[in-house]
Amino acid sequence: MKTVSSFFDLRAARLSLDGTVGLVPTMGYLHEGHLSLVARAKAENQHVIVSIFVNPTQFGANEDLSKYPRDLERDLSLLASLESPGTASQLIVWTPTAEMMYPSGYQTWVEVEALTKGLEGAMRPGHFRGVTTVVAKLFNATQPHKAYFGQKDAQQAAVIRRMVADLNFPLEMVICPTTREADGLAMSSRNKYLSEAERKAATVLFRSLNVAKALYEAGERDGEMLRRKMKEMLASEPLAQMQYVSCADYDTLEELDTVTGKALLSMAVYFGKTRLIDNFVLR
Amino acid sequence: MKTVSSFFDLRAARLSLDGTVGLVPTMGYLHEGHLSLVARAKAENQHVIVSIFVNPTQFGANEDLSKYPRDLERDLSLLASLESPGTASQLIVWTPTAEMMYPSGYQTWVEVEALTKGLEGAMRPGHFRGVTTVVAKLFNATQPHKAYFGQKDAQQAAVIRRMVADLNFPLEMVICPTTREADGLAMSSRNKYLSEAERKAATVLFRSLNVAKALYEAGERDGEMLRRKMKEMLASEPLAQMQYVSCADYDTLEELDTVTGKALLSMAVYFGKTRLIDNFVLR
Repeated sequence: MKTVSSFFDLRAARLSLDGTVGLVPTMGYLHEGHLSLVARAKAENQHVIVSIFVNPTQFGANEDLSKYPRDLERDLSLLASLESPGTASQLIVWTPTAEMMYPSGYQTWVEVEALTKGLEGAMRPGHFRGVTTVVAKLFNATQPHKAYFGQKDAQQAAVIRRMVADLNFPLEMVICPTTREADGLAMSSRNKYLSEAERKAATVLFRSLNVAKALYEAGERDGEMLRRKMKEMLASEPLAQMQYVSCADYDTLEELDTVTGKALLSMAVYFGKTRLIDNFVLR
Repeated sequence: MKTVSSFFDLRAARLSLDGTVGLVPTMGYLHEGHLSLVARAKAENQHVIVSIFVNPTQFGANEDLSKYPRDLERDLSLLASLESPGTASQLIVWTPTAEMMYPSGYQTWVEVEALTKGLEGAMRPGHFRGVTTVVAKLFNATQPHKAYFGQKDAQQAAVIRRMVADLNFPLEMVICPTTREADGLAMSSRNKYLSEAERKAATVLFRSLNVAKALYEAGERDGEMLRRKMKEMLASEPLAQMQYVSCADYDTLEELDTVTGKALLSMAVYFGKTRLIDNFVLR
């Protein structure tokens, strides 16, 4: 495993790689979800680049940038445990700084329009502009053949998929299933913010999604009914403060009156100051 | 020479190229200026891709998109004359359509902020958003090692240089000198719009720039004085309608009170309905 920080070193490392490259962009504080992306990238490419960068431009003024959890030493040792010694396969970890990514005079932004208006985009103004901009930078700097993202951030996956198609990035997007704790809670670096009681209550996202999915599988196609049932389940949990619940078209993310094709059930819920999101895909 | 239109064919052609690739983005209706870019790209790279695409998103609602001159057959024969037969060097001409570049549902834009506010950006709202977006697409689709632009479009060159740095495009920008007619008029596909009298009057841009340059070389460093002398010369030509005249910092494009470092003299002038631009770099 090779760790690089500067663009110069990253480019030198990238140019030394012969064969296919998979990119796994992360904000660090790695959990099993991230590691599953790295494992898949290793299985599908000769080499893997993992970026670790807590991107300031995707955090709102009142969000948790300064207290976002960081533990580079632990991240590196987790990644080292995934190495394949004795093979030609390389694992490169890139840890740029905010000053490198956004030097003085920085002024270029990538924006995806319609897809970023609702859901997370409505609740977190500017968030996706920061995401698409930094991901475009990561793509250009690392020139991957495939890039790996988690389904957990469903809208992010849809937005980046759109950006890749619209801007003709010569790479394949791979969206990987959400990794969950034994009780169904989607893994997230932000779960560490939860108190013990909140952690227990937080399974209500998974339970709500399951209620709606069961209804869907029993034949329910009324979008408003699916949203209502998820809201009812969330309301039954005193520690949960719903922010939004959605039943939307999988590609356009527009709210559905009637589910006809592939659809996305999603929600954002506060537990105290901690904001969690989760989703299921109906197909 | 190989001509391709679809993304599929362009990608197949690009992946077949072994070695360095130079990209020359054009809107067609090629003149000697374009051909000098292609010649330089051929000299500096093993292979060259020339794109020909009249990009609708960089034209304003009242601009000349529909009547922008086009002559693909002539363009292809001019390019064919630059080929190096008997070598392994490839010349690929890419002619995408607007429907390919901006299919239904297209919604991603690349924007450079401060640098696009003044000069051409102030006169042509949305112009540079169209330029940076299409150039990002061309870069991603063709993955060049070097990309060639003319100094004639000075602000465009500055904006794209900024985009390349900010978004970490792994390529080198090469800005080539403006090619001029014998009487000094900068070559432009739009020169063909000029009447005979306008064509004659149009040398006033070159003459104004020369007046300011001579003053600068004689020691004048007052930005307002340089602008005034250019304006006076333009005002002396009855067919010329000045839109703006600028003496700005070369990198930031901010107007200068005093010229201390590298600077850009630039102007936009109407002759009837035809809008011409030109510039000199002071260093």
